[in-house]
Amino acid sequence: MLGRVNHVAIAVPDLAAAAESYRSMLGANVTEPQALPEHGVTVVFVTLPNTKVELLEPLGEASPIAAFLAKNPAGGMHHICYEVADIIAARDRLKEAGARVLGDGTPKIGAHGKPVLFLHPKDFQGTLIELEEV
Amino acid sequence: MLGRVNHVAIAVPDLAAAAESYRSMLGANVTEPQALPEHGVTVVFVTLPNTKVELLEPLGEASPIAAFLAKNPAGGMHHICYEVADIIAARDRLKEAGARVLGDGTPKIGAHGKPVLFLHPKDFQGTLIELEEV
Repeated sequence: MLGRVNHVAIAVPDLAAAAESYRSMLGANVTEPQALPEHGVTVVFVTLPNTKVELLEPLGEASPIAAFLAKNPAGGMHHICYEVADIIAARDRLKEAGARVLGDGTPKIGAHGKPVLFLHPKDFQGTLIELEEV
Repeated sequence: MLGRVNHVAIAVPDLAAAAESYRSMLGANVTEPQALPEHGVTVVFVTLPNTKVELLEPLGEASPIAAFLAKNPAGGMHHICYEVADIIAARDRLKEAGARVLGDGTPKIGAHGKPVLFLHPKDFQGTLIELEEV
Protein backbone atom coordinates (compact mmCIF):
# COMPACT_ATOMS: atom_id res chain seq x y z
CA MET A 1 0.00 0.00 0.00
CA LEU A 2 2.72 2.51 0.95
CA GLY A 3 4.43 4.13 -2.00
CA ARG A 4 7.27 6.67 -2.08
CA VAL A 5 8.18 8.90 0.82
CA ASN A 6 6.76 12.13 -0.59
CA HIS A 7 8.37 14.33 2.07
CA VAL A 8 9.63 14.62 5.60
CA ALA A 9 8.29 17.73 7.33
CA ILE A 10 10.31 19.63 9.92
CA ALA A 11 8.65 22.32 12.02
CA VAL A 12 10.94 25.30 12.60
CA PRO A 13 10.56 28.46 14.66
CA ASP A 14 12.41 30.70 12.15
CA LEU A 15 12.05 29.72 8.52
CA ALA A 16 14.59 32.19 7.13
CA ALA A 17 17.27 30.96 9.54
CA ALA A 18 16.43 27.32 8.84
CA ALA A 19 16.50 27.80 5.07
CA GLU A 20 19.84 29.57 5.37
CA SER A 21 21.39 26.75 7.38
CA TYR A 22 20.27 24.12 4.86
CA ARG A 23 21.55 26.29 2.03
CA SER A 24 24.86 27.47 3.42
CA MET A 25 25.86 24.77 5.91
CA LEU A 26 24.47 21.72 4.10
CA GLY A 27 24.77 22.98 0.53
CA ALA A 28 21.20 22.01 -0.29
CA ASN A 29 18.81 23.43 -2.87
CA VAL A 30 16.15 25.35 -0.97
CA THR A 31 13.16 27.00 -2.65
CA GLU A 32 11.81 30.47 -1.86
CA PRO A 33 9.25 30.64 1.00
CA GLN A 34 5.62 30.03 0.06
CA ALA A 35 2.86 31.21 2.37
CA LEU A 36 -0.01 28.72 2.54
CA PRO A 37 -2.54 30.57 4.71
CA GLU A 38 -5.21 27.90 4.21
CA HIS A 39 -2.80 25.40 5.77
CA GLY A 40 -1.48 27.72 8.48
CA VAL A 41 2.15 27.40 7.43
CA THR A 42 4.86 29.03 5.39
CA VAL A 43 7.00 26.40 3.69
CA VAL A 44 10.30 26.01 1.91
CA PHE A 45 11.26 22.82 0.13
CA VAL A 46 14.71 21.28 0.43
CA THR A 47 14.87 19.41 -2.85
CA LEU A 48 16.90 16.21 -2.80
CA PRO A 49 17.49 13.66 -5.55
CA ASN A 50 14.93 11.14 -4.27
CA THR A 51 12.48 13.07 -2.09
CA LYS A 52 12.09 16.40 -0.36
CA VAL A 53 12.23 17.88 3.10
CA GLU A 54 9.71 20.56 3.93
CA LEU A 55 10.59 23.20 6.49
CA LEU A 56 7.40 24.57 8.03
CA GLU A 57 6.93 27.78 10.01
CA PRO A 58 3.59 28.64 11.64
CA LEU A 59 1.43 31.18 9.80
CA GLY A 60 -1.57 32.80 11.44
CA GLU A 61 -3.36 32.19 14.71
CA ALA A 62 -4.47 28.57 14.32
CA SER A 63 -1.43 26.94 12.77
CA PRO A 64 -1.52 23.13 12.96
CA ILE A 65 2.15 23.15 13.99
CA ALA A 66 1.83 25.72 16.79
CA ALA A 67 1.30 23.12 19.53
CA PHE A 68 4.26 21.07 18.32
CA LEU A 69 6.53 24.13 18.45
CA ALA A 70 5.23 25.09 21.87
CA LYS A 71 6.38 21.65 23.04
CA ASN A 72 9.57 21.67 20.93
CA PRO A 73 10.63 25.32 20.76
CA ALA A 74 13.80 24.60 18.78
CA GLY A 75 11.77 22.70 16.16
CA GLY A 76 11.94 19.07 15.13
CA MET A 77 10.73 16.40 12.74
CA HIS A 78 6.95 16.80 12.60
CA HIS A 79 5.61 14.18 10.18
CA ILE A 80 6.43 11.85 7.31
CA CYS A 81 4.28 11.69 4.19
CA TYR A 82 3.85 8.52 2.16
CA GLU A 83 2.23 8.33 -1.25
CA VAL A 84 -0.68 5.99 -1.85
CA ALA A 85 -2.47 5.21 -5.11
CA ASP A 86 -6.00 5.28 -3.65
CA ILE A 87 -6.53 7.22 -0.45
CA ILE A 88 -10.08 5.98 0.14
CA ALA A 89 -8.98 2.35 -0.15
CA ALA A 90 -6.03 3.11 2.14
CA ARG A 91 -8.30 4.77 4.71
CA ASP A 92 -10.77 1.90 4.69
CA ARG A 93 -8.01 -0.68 5.11
CA LEU A 94 -6.49 1.28 7.98
CA LYS A 95 -9.81 1.72 9.76
CA GLU A 96 -10.59 -1.98 9.41
CA ALA A 97 -7.19 -2.75 10.91
CA GLY A 98 -8.00 -0.54 13.88
CA ALA A 99 -5.89 2.53 13.03
CA ARG A 100 -7.29 5.95 13.84
CA VAL A 101 -7.59 8.47 11.02
CA LEU A 102 -7.50 12.08 12.26
CA GLY A 103 -10.49 14.36 11.72
CA ASP A 104 -13.69 12.94 10.28
CA GLY A 105 -11.88 10.57 7.91
CA THR A 106 -12.65 12.63 4.81
CA PRO A 107 -9.49 13.42 2.83
CA LYS A 108 -8.62 17.12 2.70
CA ILE A 109 -6.77 18.87 -0.07
CA GLY A 110 -3.20 19.17 1.16
CA ALA A 111 -0.43 21.66 0.55
CA HIS A 112 0.35 20.06 -2.83
CA GLY A 113 -3.25 20.24 -4.06
CA LYS A 114 -3.85 16.51 -3.59
CA PRO A 115 -6.04 14.55 -1.16
CA VAL A 116 -4.39 13.84 2.17
CA LEU A 117 -5.18 12.17 5.48
CA PHE A 118 -3.27 12.02 8.75
CA LEU A 119 -3.01 8.96 11.00
CA HIS A 120 -2.91 9.07 14.78
CA PRO A 121 0.68 9.02 16.11
CA LYS A 122 -0.39 6.71 18.94
CA ASP A 123 -1.03 3.94 16.41
CA PHE A 124 2.41 4.36 14.80
CA GLN A 125 5.03 4.60 17.55
CA GLY A 126 4.69 8.33 18.09
CA THR A 127 5.07 9.18 14.41
CA LEU A 128 2.54 11.43 12.69
CA ILE A 129 1.95 9.86 9.26
CA GLU A 130 0.42 11.73 6.34
CA LEU A 131 -0.92 9.79 3.35
CA GLU A 132 -1.14 11.62 0.04
CA GLU A 133 -2.89 10.28 -3.04
CA VAL A 134 -0.74 10.74 -6.13
CA MET B 1 26.51 18.71 -0.87
CA LEU B 2 23.44 16.80 0.35
CA GLY B 3 22.54 13.79 -1.74
CA ARG B 4 19.66 11.34 -1.36
CA VAL B 5 17.76 10.78 1.85
CA ASN B 6 19.27 7.41 2.74
CA HIS B 7 16.78 6.71 5.52
CA VAL B 8 14.53 8.12 8.18
CA ALA B 9 15.02 6.43 11.54
CA ILE B 10 12.19 5.92 14.00
CA ALA B 11 12.93 4.79 17.55
CA VAL B 12 10.33 2.32 18.85
CA PRO B 13 9.84 0.65 22.22
CA ASP B 14 8.63 -2.68 20.75
CA LEU B 15 10.12 -3.62 17.40
CA ALA B 16 7.91 -6.64 16.77
CA ALA B 17 4.75 -4.60 17.31
CA ALA B 18 6.06 -1.75 15.16
CA ALA B 19 7.05 -4.06 12.33
CA GLU B 20 3.64 -5.70 12.48
CA SER B 21 1.79 -2.39 12.24
CA TYR B 22 3.82 -1.29 9.21
CA ARG B 23 3.26 -4.67 7.61
CA SER B 24 -0.41 -5.27 8.35
CA MET B 25 -1.85 -1.77 8.74
CA LEU B 26 0.24 0.06 6.15
CA GLY B 27 0.91 -2.83 3.78
CA ALA B 28 4.64 -2.11 3.68
CA ASN B 29 7.53 -4.45 3.00
CA VAL B 30 9.36 -4.94 6.28
CA THR B 31 12.56 -6.95 6.62
CA GLU B 32 13.34 -9.43 9.39
CA PRO B 33 14.92 -7.94 12.55
CA GLN B 34 18.71 -7.61 12.55
CA ALA B 35 20.55 -7.25 15.83
CA LEU B 36 23.44 -4.79 15.57
CA PRO B 37 25.06 -5.09 19.01
CA GLU B 38 27.98 -2.83 18.04
CA HIS B 39 25.42 -0.06 17.36
CA GLY B 40 23.19 -0.82 20.34
CA VAL B 41 20.07 -1.37 18.26
CA THR B 42 17.95 -4.01 16.61
CA VAL B 43 16.62 -2.78 13.30
CA VAL B 44 14.04 -3.59 10.68
CA PHE B 45 13.90 -1.79 7.35
CA VAL B 46 10.66 -0.61 5.82
CA THR B 47 11.61 -0.64 2.15
CA LEU B 48 9.92 1.97 0.00
CA PRO B 49 10.37 2.74 -3.69
CA ASN B 50 12.64 5.77 -3.15
CA THR B 51 14.18 5.40 0.30
CA LYS B 52 13.78 3.42 3.50
CA VAL B 53 12.51 3.86 7.01
CA GLU B 54 14.44 2.18 9.78
CA LEU B 55 12.64 1.09 12.92
CA LEU B 56 15.12 0.95 15.79
CA GLU B 57 14.73 -0.80 19.15
CA PRO B 58 17.35 -0.45 21.88
CA LEU B 59 19.74 -3.37 22.29
CA GLY B 60 21.98 -3.72 25.32
CA GLU B 61 22.80 -1.42 28.20
CA ALA B 62 24.25 1.60 26.39
CA SER B 63 21.95 1.98 23.43
CA PRO B 64 22.28 5.37 21.70
CA ILE B 65 18.48 5.58 21.47
CA ALA B 66 17.75 4.80 25.13
CA ALA B 67 17.67 8.45 26.22
CA PHE B 68 15.37 9.37 23.35
CA LEU B 69 12.92 6.61 24.31
CA ALA B 70 13.08 7.61 27.97
CA LYS B 71 11.92 11.06 26.85
CA ASN B 72 9.50 9.72 24.21
CA PRO B 73 8.24 6.41 25.60
CA ALA B 74 5.86 5.79 22.68
CA GLY B 75 8.70 6.28 20.20
CA GLY B 76 9.16 8.88 17.49
CA MET B 77 11.23 10.08 14.56
CA HIS B 78 14.84 9.97 15.75
CA HIS B 79 17.03 11.12 12.87
CA ILE B 80 17.29 11.63 9.13
CA CYS B 81 20.27 10.39 7.14
CA TYR B 82 21.53 12.15 4.03
CA GLU B 83 24.08 10.72 1.64
CA VAL B 84 27.23 12.68 0.83
CA ALA B 85 29.94 11.88 -1.69
CA ASP B 86 32.88 12.83 0.56
CA ILE B 87 32.29 12.79 4.30
CA ILE B 88 35.59 14.45 5.20
CA ALA B 89 34.92 17.35 2.82
CA ALA B 90 31.37 17.59 4.21
CA ARG B 91 32.65 17.63 7.79
CA ASP B 92 35.23 20.30 7.07
CA ARG B 93 32.72 22.52 5.29
CA LEU B 94 30.25 22.14 8.17
CA LYS B 95 32.85 22.91 10.81
CA GLU B 96 34.00 25.98 8.91
CA ALA B 97 30.39 27.12 8.74
CA GLY B 98 30.11 26.77 12.52
CA ALA B 99 28.10 23.53 12.74
CA ARG B 100 28.91 21.09 15.52
CA VAL B 101 29.82 17.55 14.57
CA LEU B 102 29.09 15.05 17.36
CA GLY B 103 31.91 13.04 18.92
CA ASP B 104 35.49 13.82 17.98
CA GLY B 105 34.66 14.52 14.34
CA THR B 106 36.13 11.27 13.08
CA PRO B 107 33.64 9.33 10.94
CA LYS B 108 32.56 6.01 12.42
CA ILE B 109 31.44 2.96 10.50
CA GLY B 110 27.65 3.03 10.60
CA ALA B 111 25.00 0.35 10.53
CA HIS B 112 25.38 -0.02 6.75
CA GLY B 113 29.16 -0.51 6.91
CA LYS B 114 29.89 2.99 5.59
CA PRO B 115 31.45 6.08 7.23
CA VAL B 116 28.93 8.23 9.09
CA LEU B 117 28.86 11.39 11.18
CA PHE B 118 26.09 12.99 13.23
CA LEU B 119 25.43 16.73 13.46
CA HIS B 120 24.21 18.53 16.56
CA PRO B 121 20.41 18.94 16.56
CA LYS B 122 20.78 22.44 18.02
CA ASP B 123 22.35 23.60 14.76
CA PHE B 124 19.51 22.17 12.65
CA GLN B 125 16.19 23.11 14.25
CA GLY B 126 16.05 20.20 16.67
CA THR B 127 16.70 17.59 13.97
CA LEU B 128 19.44 15.01 14.44
CA ILE B 129 21.15 14.70 11.04
CA GLU B 130 23.31 11.75 10.03
CA LEU B 131 25.61 12.02 7.04
CA GLU B 132 26.66 8.81 5.31
CA GLU B 133 29.33 8.57 2.66
CA VAL B 134 28.15 6.44 -0.27
